Amino acid sequence: MPQPLFVIPLWADLVAVGLGGIQGALFASGFRGDRRLDFLGVAIIGILMGMGGGLIRDLLLGLPPATLQSNWYLLTAIAAALVGMLLAGILARVNWLIVGLDAVVIGLFGAFGTSKALVVGLPLVPAVFVGVCAAVGGGVLRDVMMGLPVAIMHVGSLYAVAAGAGCLALASAAALGLDIGLAAVIGVSFTTVIRLLAVIFDLSLPEQRMLYRRKVAVETAAIPIVHPKA
Amino acid sequence: MPQPLFVIPLWADLVAVGLGGIQGALFASGFRGDRRLDFLGVAIIGILMGMGGGLIRDLLLGLPPATLQSNWYLLTAIAAALVGMLLAGILARVNWLIVGLDAVVIGLFGAFGTSKALVVGLPLVPAVFVGVCAAVGGGVLRDVMMGLPVAIMHVGSLYAVAAGAGCLALASAAALGLDIGLAAVIGVSFTTVIRLLAVIFDLSLPEQRMLYRRKVAVETAAIPIVHPKA
Amino acid sequence: MPQPLFVIPLWADLVAVGLGGIQGALFASGFRGDRRLDFLGVAIIGILMGMGGGLIRDLLLGLPPATLQSNWYLLTAIAAALVGMLLAGILARVNWLIVGLDAVVIGLFGAFGTSKALVVGLPLVPAVFVGVCAAVGGGVLRDVMMGLPVAIMHVGSLYAVAAGAGCLALASAAALGLDIGLAAVIGVSFTTVIRLLAVIFDLSLPEQRMLYRRKVAVETAAIPIVHPKA
Repeated sequence: MPQPLFVIPLWADLVAVGLGGIQGALFASGFRGDRRLDFLGVAIIGILMGMGGGLIRDLLLGLPPATLQSNWYLLTAIAAALVGMLLAGILARVNWLIVGLDAVVIGLFGAFGTSKALVVGLPLVPAVFVGVCAAVGGGVLRDVMMGLPVAIMHVGSLYAVAAGAGCLALASAAALGLDIGLAAVIGVSFTTVIRLLAVIFDLSLPEQRMLYRRKVAVETAAIPIVHPKA
Repeated sequence: MPQPLFVIPLWADLVAVGLGGIQGALFASGFRGDRRLDFLGVAIIGILMGMGGGLIRDLLLGLPPATLQSNWYLLTAIAAALVGMLLAGILARVNWLIVGLDAVVIGLFGAFGTSKALVVGLPLVPAVFVGVCAAVGGGVLRDVMMGLPVAIMHVGSLYAVAAGAGCLALASAAALGLDIGLAAVIGVSFTTVIRLLAVIFDLSLPEQRMLYRRKVAVETAAIPIVHPKA
Repeated sequence: MPQPLFVIPLWADLVAVGLGGIQGALFASGFRGDRRLDFLGVAIIGILMGMGGGLIRDLLLGLPPATLQSNWYLLTAIAAALVGMLLAGILARVNWLIVGLDAVVIGLFGAFGTSKALVVGLPLVPAVFVGVCAAVGGGVLRDVMMGLPVAIMHVGSLYAVAAGAGCLALASAAALGLDIGLAAVIGVSFTTVIRLLAVIFDLSLPEQRMLYRRKVAVETAAIPIVHPKA
């Protein structure tokens, strides 16, 4: 495996890890299930949300996880989770902040995932896939660890679609010869804006069931015409 | 790591991915939980079932996932998931097709997993283990993502056992000097036939509890003989 | 990646795998959910608990899993799971044995994880992280596969904290120049003793909610002093 020429700057990576950690801890602090989370549980969610995306990206690329090659990633994620826990009391009702942070975080993880995949030599489609997995992976790990229904699987707010659109925009821009740094900025913006618009306008994908029902309705409506009763 | 001399032909790999994708989408379309799946959810299950086995195999072998080295795998899985969704309305009651497809798919993934593991140099026992993980891994990921009880863990229809028997047959045939392509055909056939027989005759493993009860019953029955009361 | 100079002796690794397998099978045999486990389910839990920690460790380190490079690991884990199943009837009420075994097993997996990470060249913080993941990873996989709430996430008995303290002790001792074999013994002892003390004295971390309530109580108590009413 050749040494990648493009390296995500450490500060950018740590910003994503830190924002992810804060967001995860805010989410976990607000969680009231039938079994409660202790301090450690909230911290684990913060670490998962801050570092999960990067871990999944590197596993899919077959590389040793970059987030474990320096002390800074874990220290940042733990510090961010602590900040998130302390702020949870104050921010409990500032829901838009949690949603906004989340939109930026999935944008960043998606862009880092796709650009690293392209640099390592993956074709466009799998590079976008790795980006989406990096963007939504932390949330999937969080939901599985907390015993919640996995959010991206259910009728929601175009969560993975926002990540996919941003990663595709990045990969397309890079394929057209754009500088990958600039392409990454475009990707992050795409994801963040689509995700926020989806939340604001309460957009979601049509359900499988609804579509099926509509088809049945059409077929049922057609019956009287084909086989008139009277 | 030496370059494997044996490479699974791309068309065979894509057939497995495509059948897995169709099967996953059919399964997910029939799912009626308390929280419904949207289009994206059905597509994700299709991709997981089509590509999950290969991903898990390569992670266990410490190799970069083969399914991400070309555009074809993801495109095939996505197309297959779409086909599965469109056919779901028609095929909802053709349960034997879903079961039959599934039997072939676990056979293929098991055979590809075991043969790749053998080629990479793993001993027989771990090679069979990698094959079984490749065969059932997509289904485990599906169940975890959908919040269902993990099927292979519960009293069922010899699902993992069918995969294990096929992988063991393949590995044994290869150890006896048989051509690995021929060994793979034997492995796929073993798994598919055992799985179908298990479904047809409703076979399952005895439960842990039942066995325990039987043992207690034997011990209780033995008491009068050892310590006669009268 | 350089060849590690320090190699965990095979017998030590197999002892950990075997104890983990027995412990997992004992745990799974005692499980009475709404859907029962069959033989295979109990065996899978035994294999997961015996080999899961090592698999997760090597995935995080970007190395091919050591537990799949020889036949012995799987054979040991399967044999141990069988022994655990046979003993489950006798040991069902010997809860302290299951807890004691578990304390030793997380100590061993944590120590092997941290020491291998240090040898591969990871800095102190990620090395401790890898050790903790290796120690608790098998249990997380077990809970997810069995559909149980993930134990380390919930108000519990300092499970992950015991692992973390032992791994930190090992890494600190190694950083101070102690022989890594001796450091590993210290680490295992730390984890086992802390875990057992936590269970004996029923210690747990304060809940997030409780702390939040206490803070609110303090603030409420302070109000009369700052703004006296009378």
